[in-house]
Amino acid sequence: MYDLKKQGQAAKQASFVLMAMSQEKKSKALLAVADSLENNADKILAENQKDLETLLKNPAKASFADRLKLTKDRIAQIADGVRKVELLPDPVGEVTGMEKRPNGLIIGKKRVPLGVIGIIYEARPNVTVDAAALCIKTSNACILRGGSEAFHSNKILVDIMNEALDGAGFPKGSVSLVEDTSRETAAEMMRLNEYIDVLIPRGGAGLIRAVVNTATVPVIETGTGNCHIYVEKSADITMAREITVNAKTSRPSVCNAAESLLVDEEIAKDALPAIAEGLKPFHVEIRGCEKTVKILPQAVLATEEDYYTEYNDFILSVKVVSGIDEAIRHINRCGTKHSESIVTKNYEASQKFLDEIDAAAVYVNASTRFTDGFEFGFGAEIGISTQKLHARGPLGLKELTSCKYIIYGNGQVRG
Amino acid sequence: MYDLKKQGQAAKQASFVLMAMSQEKKSKALLAVADSLENNADKILAENQKDLETLLKNPAKASFADRLKLTKDRIAQIADGVRKVELLPDPVGEVTGMEKRPNGLIIGKKRVPLGVIGIIYEARPNVTVDAAALCIKTSNACILRGGSEAFHSNKILVDIMNEALDGAGFPKGSVSLVEDTSRETAAEMMRLNEYIDVLIPRGGAGLIRAVVNTATVPVIETGTGNCHIYVEKSADITMAREITVNAKTSRPSVCNAAESLLVDEEIAKDALPAIAEGLKPFHVEIRGCEKTVKILPQAVLATEEDYYTEYNDFILSVKVVSGIDEAIRHINRCGTKHSESIVTKNYEASQKFLDEIDAAAVYVNASTRFTDGFEFGFGAEIGISTQKLHARGPLGLKELTSCKYIIYGNGQVRG
Repeated sequence: MYDLKKQGQAAKQASFVLMAMSQEKKSKALLAVADSLENNADKILAENQKDLETLLKNPAKASFADRLKLTKDRIAQIADGVRKVELLPDPVGEVTGMEKRPNGLIIGKKRVPLGVIGIIYEARPNVTVDAAALCIKTSNACILRGGSEAFHSNKILVDIMNEALDGAGFPKGSVSLVEDTSRETAAEMMRLNEYIDVLIPRGGAGLIRAVVNTATVPVIETGTGNCHIYVEKSADITMAREITVNAKTSRPSVCNAAESLLVDEEIAKDALPAIAEGLKPFHVEIRGCEKTVKILPQAVLATEEDYYTEYNDFILSVKVVSGIDEAIRHINRCGTKHSESIVTKNYEASQKFLDEIDAAAVYVNASTRFTDGFEFGFGAEIGISTQKLHARGPLGLKELTSCKYIIYGNGQVRG
Repeated sequence: MYDLKKQGQAAKQASFVLMAMSQEKKSKALLAVADSLENNADKILAENQKDLETLLKNPAKASFADRLKLTKDRIAQIADGVRKVELLPDPVGEVTGMEKRPNGLIIGKKRVPLGVIGIIYEARPNVTVDAAALCIKTSNACILRGGSEAFHSNKILVDIMNEALDGAGFPKGSVSLVEDTSRETAAEMMRLNEYIDVLIPRGGAGLIRAVVNTATVPVIETGTGNCHIYVEKSADITMAREITVNAKTSRPSVCNAAESLLVDEEIAKDALPAIAEGLKPFHVEIRGCEKTVKILPQAVLATEEDYYTEYNDFILSVKVVSGIDEAIRHINRCGTKHSESIVTKNYEASQKFLDEIDAAAVYVNASTRFTDGFEFGFGAEIGISTQKLHARGPLGLKELTSCKYIIYGNGQVRG
């Protein structure tokens, strides 16, 4: 049987050493990792080729090949990503809110690593390096569990990183791969509370749901985005069209792409044809309510389920609403609390939407596609949180840390 | 069958209204709740009497009577607690970090309620009111699930609060009690992800473990404290004695009480008898390692399990350690990440302890008993978090909130 407990133990041990690791040492390690990946590109490509060959034996899985495939260029990009992480400011160690209490105790809050982070993800070898680099930067140990289709690629990547980390004086166990990709071992990982402090699943809705349902380790839920564009009655129709087209078509497979369009009844007759015209070159299928179908003959009738669906495809659900109240109710009911946008010229409507929509990112007059750690200026991202605990929205370096209170006394006892 | 789903739905609906509730309205509601509790003291006492009579039929449970029993004075104290919460600054609505991005988007972070908070607790009717008041103040709806022994008390308290909330224009479902106290319904509550945003268990180690193991709703783990006092070799022995006596004996039943004492080998012969002398009037049982037993003949030999135990009683485990490295390793292995204190005169030792101990609150030269929302100056507390996600240490009003990004644009689309 695979000894995940032992792996967890090693990661936990390493995390205590990493806690006190200097920024200099972490920087050296990251640069060594980046160089080592580039210098070993041939080895990586050979292992990646094994994964690709196995994958392509199963035609049903051929569509995953693009995510799985590495090239010299992609490896260089991945290495550059590590170098960019190295350049970011280190959040660990910052002390804030240091205050003196009436009894003379001085209390402050110190930013510290989370400890051991478990990352569960699909067959994307780039995530292996990205996630490890972000954890190294924030003094966290990490246990990586990637999709089985990428096993050989992940194994060689982790081996190469570990050689570099070893040379940089990092303790064994700082970065490790779960080498048994069975579901049982994944489930065991999700309940390894003794050694793993936080789980971050990265992937599709099915993966996230499995982790949330199985885990006893605290989870940061990421990812699924059923995002809406709401065109309020005062909206500039040209702006509404541009935002909708961008949010739907610029990259439909990602979580911040729009999946649903809501249009106020009062302007639906003008707005819907204009927006549909903009979507036409992208062959977007429109699934609308009865009112939509009356205005847009090319639309098919949506089912109730459509309004809950993240298509990740060139499909858009559309609903004509009576006004902002119905729009907000609909979004809060059907959305996934990711990113929501209103197009409006009305001050009151903009404020109401910002106040009452329950989502990680709420926009006025902009595309939902901006919800992203880089676009928000964090310089990095390990996912987008759609839960309310700990962190919401793009998870940057700071979101990979926790705090502890530090208290300076001179003999105080409690009366 | 009890319809918990319906109750969850009502709470969720209410939470959307509460999200936009003004501070004025919340203040009025809290004051009305406080008055109403005092005005209905007789009704409350009558229901409380029913719970007490049932409890006392079972002699094994008699020790819980003190926690369960209400009096006019206790009700007045509870009402005053609500008035104090009303006076605290409201964290909801604050916007921070508003910044302009190169593309003209203005992005900021707005503090918002968590939504629906589920509180699972033991037979302490005061928690019913405390928790509800903190949730009202922070615009959260709450679902309360108290111990079955306090059912009649909790029911009348929630009924009285709801009458007052109703009068203050709060939506139904803002505060509700799970009226079926079966384990099945509790388990259902822990998995009601659709309607409950966060679970906060308050109680003993068994309750917390049950919630962590069963819940799919995100949990803030609170409570268990296996806290240590470490007497470093340079320590002032008088200070070490006073801190240990205070941390162990001032209120042994609470989570920030010390359960274990570590003493450097070099000063054990002087420090241990002095500390034991201080503990003597409190009849503290000492369970020590072999070295301890040699120095303190009154000590009994500790088992390995003792070092993992939160006694909540006049018992103290003691270990003589070779130095600060062993002390830190021992605490990080056996502790519960709650509160840990070093007594020292040495600068380097103090910094090392603050850096390397993995706990919510790390002290130099002070009693662990200060880990408390009131002592830390938060003016309120719903528990003490021992996990690293979301919040660590005392949970005040701010910890009952989340954030969302708000983004002002003027037509931006992503390139």
